[in-house]
Amino acid sequence: MKNEPLSLFAFDVFAPAHLTSGSWRNEGDQGYRYTDLQYWTGIARKLEDAGFDGIFFADNVGYHDVYRGNGDAALRDAAQFPINDPTVLISGMAAVTKHLSFGVTVSATYEPPYLLARKFSSLDHLTGGRVGWNIVTSYSEAAARNLGKEQQVTPLERYDMADEYMDVVYKLWESSFEEDAVVRDAESATYIDPAKVHQINHSGQHFTVPGFHLCEPSPQRTPVLFQAGSSSRGMEFGGKHAEAVFIQSTSVEGAKRTVAKLRQAVSDAGRDPQDVKIVILLTVVVAPTNEEAQAKYQKAVDNAPIDGILARFSGWTGIDMSEYELDVPLRSVGTKAGQSMVDMFSKADPDRDWTPRQIAEFLAVGGTGSTIIGSPETIASELRRWRDEADVDGINLSYTTKPGSWDDFIELALPELRAQGIIAPERNEDQEPVTLREKLFGQKYTLNGHPATAHRATHLSEAAR
Amino acid sequence: MKNEPLSLFAFDVFAPAHLTSGSWRNEGDQGYRYTDLQYWTGIARKLEDAGFDGIFFADNVGYHDVYRGNGDAALRDAAQFPINDPTVLISGMAAVTKHLSFGVTVSATYEPPYLLARKFSSLDHLTGGRVGWNIVTSYSEAAARNLGKEQQVTPLERYDMADEYMDVVYKLWESSFEEDAVVRDAESATYIDPAKVHQINHSGQHFTVPGFHLCEPSPQRTPVLFQAGSSSRGMEFGGKHAEAVFIQSTSVEGAKRTVAKLRQAVSDAGRDPQDVKIVILLTVVVAPTNEEAQAKYQKAVDNAPIDGILARFSGWTGIDMSEYELDVPLRSVGTKAGQSMVDMFSKADPDRDWTPRQIAEFLAVGGTGSTIIGSPETIASELRRWRDEADVDGINLSYTTKPGSWDDFIELALPELRAQGIIAPERNEDQEPVTLREKLFGQKYTLNGHPATAHRATHLSEAAR
Repeated sequence: MKNEPLSLFAFDVFAPAHLTSGSWRNEGDQGYRYTDLQYWTGIARKLEDAGFDGIFFADNVGYHDVYRGNGDAALRDAAQFPINDPTVLISGMAAVTKHLSFGVTVSATYEPPYLLARKFSSLDHLTGGRVGWNIVTSYSEAAARNLGKEQQVTPLERYDMADEYMDVVYKLWESSFEEDAVVRDAESATYIDPAKVHQINHSGQHFTVPGFHLCEPSPQRTPVLFQAGSSSRGMEFGGKHAEAVFIQSTSVEGAKRTVAKLRQAVSDAGRDPQDVKIVILLTVVVAPTNEEAQAKYQKAVDNAPIDGILARFSGWTGIDMSEYELDVPLRSVGTKAGQSMVDMFSKADPDRDWTPRQIAEFLAVGGTGSTIIGSPETIASELRRWRDEADVDGINLSYTTKPGSWDDFIELALPELRAQGIIAPERNEDQEPVTLREKLFGQKYTLNGHPATAHRATHLSEAAR
Repeated sequence: MKNEPLSLFAFDVFAPAHLTSGSWRNEGDQGYRYTDLQYWTGIARKLEDAGFDGIFFADNVGYHDVYRGNGDAALRDAAQFPINDPTVLISGMAAVTKHLSFGVTVSATYEPPYLLARKFSSLDHLTGGRVGWNIVTSYSEAAARNLGKEQQVTPLERYDMADEYMDVVYKLWESSFEEDAVVRDAESATYIDPAKVHQINHSGQHFTVPGFHLCEPSPQRTPVLFQAGSSSRGMEFGGKHAEAVFIQSTSVEGAKRTVAKLRQAVSDAGRDPQDVKIVILLTVVVAPTNEEAQAKYQKAVDNAPIDGILARFSGWTGIDMSEYELDVPLRSVGTKAGQSMVDMFSKADPDRDWTPRQIAEFLAVGGTGSTIIGSPETIASELRRWRDEADVDGINLSYTTKPGSWDDFIELALPELRAQGIIAPERNEDQEPVTLREKLFGQKYTLNGHPATAHRATHLSEAAR
């Protein structure tokens, strides 16, 4: 059990609404302004001023059209749709901030590693090292269809490809340019010393990349790597590559089990189990009193249409929930929906057999993550429990209304959380900006034991080692 | 001959140096700051304050490794290398401006049309309709190798694919969402009316995209389409799709011939030949007197290493210029380099047989575009000649030093150009921002006769037509 403050990330998506169904119907919600850059710069400033460590963007290049076999319910509820490209939003938010970090979800499935490496190096440069990449390998059927992948590869193949993909981007980020390759010597007309830029000569089963990286080394070289896979192969992948892992759980106990498994996977990969930060998805509904908070929560639940909730859930699981009775426990009827519950919920509650309606009630606010509801004191004691019992290092804060939920959190919960040492104190006015990895691990480049580090060490010149 | 003011774009690349070899060696040059977002926001503000219509980013996902069979000379001279991803830079510049437009080069070769359509819709939203796409179909061998395309397709095949690619993105941008599909009606829990969102059902020779677009309609729907192909198939493609075409020429007479051909290609495609804006690449070296300007130009030429120049040229043409004597006219020795001269230079000067050294001298400043050197009066009279004789609509302004060349242009040349009506007067303080297409054509959506327009007209509901 550690006594350190939790890292604090806002969790969002470049869309009108994210995990709370019907959030756009809530009073004062500004999700509809998602196409407006000034809206995002305002949010970035707000989060930075409040001392958030960063904002994290989920993403998907598909839409939820499993429920009832079409996208109608998802469109009606703006269920993570429309969904714009978060990579092009970051520099706008970075332009008005100095400390806030940015996590971005990008699939390693649709873009050659050579281009993804350039994109993240560019972002790492522009943000001064404030960027992280959430590595996603899975994708929706809708995405696959529209991206010309007629047959989805199996999850296991995907992870094998992703392992090689990571190998390629590590080589580009870490070993192509030596530390002192960029000399900018006007006298000798040498901007870059070609002797210190290396072709990576990658030739593998899935990718062939002979050349050198298109970008000079960025502040972090490799962006901070986030991952969220919960299958056993996903955990193995995360154990090897992830520097931070997102989890979600219906209970503290379930989270505790997941965290233990994750740290074991990290250890199995030969790394220190504390070299991965565990960040848990939570939605906080806070008000001056528990009763007011509960009422606020209930309003959000009331605004969440069950079709919108089940459209999301059907999209996530690939199972059309319209085929099941709302009040019949799923596992007991032996359906694949029941199996899906085992995957998504039962790790946390192995003994519980959920009905679709119960699932919908749980998911209405904050999706598959837990929701903490109450006064500032209640929030503090709950968050303390998540930190101390589940052994998590940070939270990914979702919302019921935006930016209202974050405003409430900042005004009401944050002072109490800081007073109790659960969240770090306010940033000193004259604090110099640091990279995201420095925030999390106290250093700019990947830690020893991480596979990227080996690439850096192998290829750098004697002098730079 | 029209008497209208020229559109004014700055021409750049997300790299330390662009078309002027050794520009980074020039006194006061700040190209090395290209990784710094604050540098770019400063440039954006400067250009907006001066009344530029936009800034245009070239791009390439390869590097120049043809010269001497390696990248050494290109790396030494930072010859369009390192080269970051311009799509992730735009929102940073958009965040601090209201009027400046952004042209971005993206290849239609490496990214599925479904993702490119999302990226540009996202940018069009974030910039409030201030974005243009420079459609590129060609690519360097270095790019193809590193992107896993072992065999380059032929240019003709590329254009056929690109034609279908355009078809897909038009459908996504123009016909997937009806004008009034987004209703945001909290009462009926309907953010989007599913009846007004259509699957595009595209199934062609190269692409299969059954679904609907991921983004709601952006201010321009289709971004303003730029193109620069100069082969006959390239011109045919541009004649059909381009709303603006970039050209470059060693002489006014050459430009005039090219413009005539382009307008003919537009006419051949069934469009009004004036529905395409012709934007010419020019570098302006201005000083209070002609002599001072000439001295300034000479300094830039002196700082341009011939290896760096020929590395660029070899990369553009695919011909290793190190294999030729510097002072032997190329065409006369019957080489493929000579043929390449025909392609790149001889349209402008059909009777001239260039030596590599002469080519290098021409290319040293501003690459394959012409350079205008002199006092403000000289610049004005030259620019007037380009406009009136070559029939161009705008200029793409390159530089010898950055931002020094643009500072000079703004301080010295612009007042004279405005006084003479060659460039539009300063923007009125209270002018409302408009989209890029409104700037160029006075309307937000594609003009009648453009292929995108047909898609919009076909699929929109009766009410919206």
